[in-house]
Amino acid sequence: MSGSEAHGAAPATSLDEQGLIERYFRPLATAPGAFSLLDDAASYTPPPGADLVLTKDGIAEDIHFLPGEDAGVIARKALRVNLSDLAAKGATPVGYLVLLGLSDDWSEDWVARFAEGLAGDQNLYGATLYGGDTIRSGRFIVTITAFGTVASGGIVRRAGARAGDHVYVSGTIGDGALGLLAARGDPRLAGLGEKHRAHLLSRYHLPQPRVALAESVARFATAALDVSDGLVGDLDKLCTVSGVTARVSAADVPLSEAAGAAVKRDPALLSVCLTGGDDYEIICTVPPEKASDFEASVSSAAVPVRKIAEVTQNGGRAEFVDSAGLEMDFGNRSFSHIDSHAASHDRGTYSGR
Amino acid sequence: MSGSEAHGAAPATSLDEQGLIERYFRPLATAPGAFSLLDDAASYTPPPGADLVLTKDGIAEDIHFLPGEDAGVIARKALRVNLSDLAAKGATPVGYLVLLGLSDDWSEDWVARFAEGLAGDQNLYGATLYGGDTIRSGRFIVTITAFGTVASGGIVRRAGARAGDHVYVSGTIGDGALGLLAARGDPRLAGLGEKHRAHLLSRYHLPQPRVALAESVARFATAALDVSDGLVGDLDKLCTVSGVTARVSAADVPLSEAAGAAVKRDPALLSVCLTGGDDYEIICTVPPEKASDFEASVSSAAVPVRKIAEVTQNGGRAEFVDSAGLEMDFGNRSFSHIDSHAASHDRGTYSGR
Repeated sequence: MSGSEAHGAAPATSLDEQGLIERYFRPLATAPGAFSLLDDAASYTPPPGADLVLTKDGIAEDIHFLPGEDAGVIARKALRVNLSDLAAKGATPVGYLVLLGLSDDWSEDWVARFAEGLAGDQNLYGATLYGGDTIRSGRFIVTITAFGTVASGGIVRRAGARAGDHVYVSGTIGDGALGLLAARGDPRLAGLGEKHRAHLLSRYHLPQPRVALAESVARFATAALDVSDGLVGDLDKLCTVSGVTARVSAADVPLSEAAGAAVKRDPALLSVCLTGGDDYEIICTVPPEKASDFEASVSSAAVPVRKIAEVTQNGGRAEFVDSAGLEMDFGNRSFSHIDSHAASHDRGTYSGR
Repeated sequence: MSGSEAHGAAPATSLDEQGLIERYFRPLATAPGAFSLLDDAASYTPPPGADLVLTKDGIAEDIHFLPGEDAGVIARKALRVNLSDLAAKGATPVGYLVLLGLSDDWSEDWVARFAEGLAGDQNLYGATLYGGDTIRSGRFIVTITAFGTVASGGIVRRAGARAGDHVYVSGTIGDGALGLLAARGDPRLAGLGEKHRAHLLSRYHLPQPRVALAESVARFATAALDVSDGLVGDLDKLCTVSGVTARVSAADVPLSEAAGAAVKRDPALLSVCLTGGDDYEIICTVPPEKASDFEASVSSAAVPVRKIAEVTQNGGRAEFVDSAGLEMDFGNRSFSHIDSHAASHDRGTYSGR
């Protein structure tokens, strides 16, 4: 089909789906197995000695991003939440398939900016487009399946942490959750300076997946997951499936300067940081004898990590203690995607999430 | 996370996302690489000598199915449109990832029936769940990424048809499009008998992907695609990318008894059959010297196929001629997903569609 025919009353563009694909998506499909988006399906074969790792995540208007959000940011966010999952499994990104659900008032300009966002992230992270689908869906929705590779048998599971392992977390925790509060004009952040507010907002709007950490995770970690639903809940998950306990001093959890300032003004915000989600950092466990090699490896990858606990036997849960040494009680320990009160915030997924 | 905690005000169920996963989705995740849906991502490695084939398609309430449609049918439809793409590429299905977008009035019973639909199709087609994501999306939306395998280098492309090849189409054409008219109470089908109407409706509601044809396609076809946007438009696509022409006598296109009866009452419905989409049959081209082996092979797979044309050099298009030998003029030659007039009907996708 020629891409230049216009069918019907699609708004603000003379392009039909084929036209959109040719103009905006085909340039992203640079891998041979994507067949220039000219086929029903794509083909990919992991190199000998490698396993494929697959994950799928979606974001929807009004739930994960606000109406009017920049299309390029939406595209990047949708891709990055998937790349974060791959990184936590130790996988190097290869490609992705995208389903774009268009709202009734979509425009060609919106699609152009969406594709531009993907193009920028393809350059940053080295994954290319392998295919997808464009439908009308009432509101904007983006679902992405991303895939990557690990050395054969080398996927890093959530299960696998052993007594004595050190628990590391990358980057800083809580910025995304505080950024959401800032976006909502929450009064608890009213006195925060502009620079701090901007930092939190940017962390909320656009995840920074720790793709650079994947190789170190693959080489040294016994277990890992990405922090999308909150540090407390996600560390709980790792402990549960590994059958171990991790006792974390809340004071050891790395906070950004901005989050630190917010918590200093209102100490109750510490709970928001620990349970709020949207971090897209990585938790991993590393055997003590490999800890220094792991730290050297991530340091050369220029990713900050901090040890927050050592794993003890049995129990199957994470415990967080405050500065008085008392165990903290969080109520909801992580966000859920499907509960209505979590609207605009839910993030997590299930395998392959 | 325990699956039994209830967060917030999700309607008609005490289960949160983890609870839904444990109860309804985990039993579908039987492959070792799905990790019982307990991890961030899944793992799969094609056996030596095989390539992976990937495709992604989505369907949305109000666009591809009506509000109130049975959740099991929605699940099956979403999976089957993907399996149809794999079959057309000659690929044997292996697994799939599903994103389920829940409307605001979702219920646990709806999710239970959705999972039941998937379970039934897993048994029928041999693909199992590898992961996914559940989000709130305002209206029900299902996007699926399915994957399968072909012998190394053996994916059957749309490009590849050569002069002299026979053009085959499986099953019957037009039932889905007429079924949509029937569902809408279109007066042109008013006089059709109940049995015929039921046949058309069932073909519209639930595609029957030609998974059983995949092996024959892989062994004998030079080019193939699945008919999702209408025979005319999809054969156009195959001809365009292959750089060949196929001239089809409309009278040779296989119609079901029901479609034949409808066209007999109103001959203008023939155009609807040829361009209407929703067929999920396979078009493939087979070299003349392999035609009889191909026919024997599909016959043993119990899939009806009919030769509808022979490919001629150059041109890059499909021509359909009527009983008087005149070329038919269709206006829109296939349905588009994103044009508003195509609402409730659009189906196609792009690679990997």
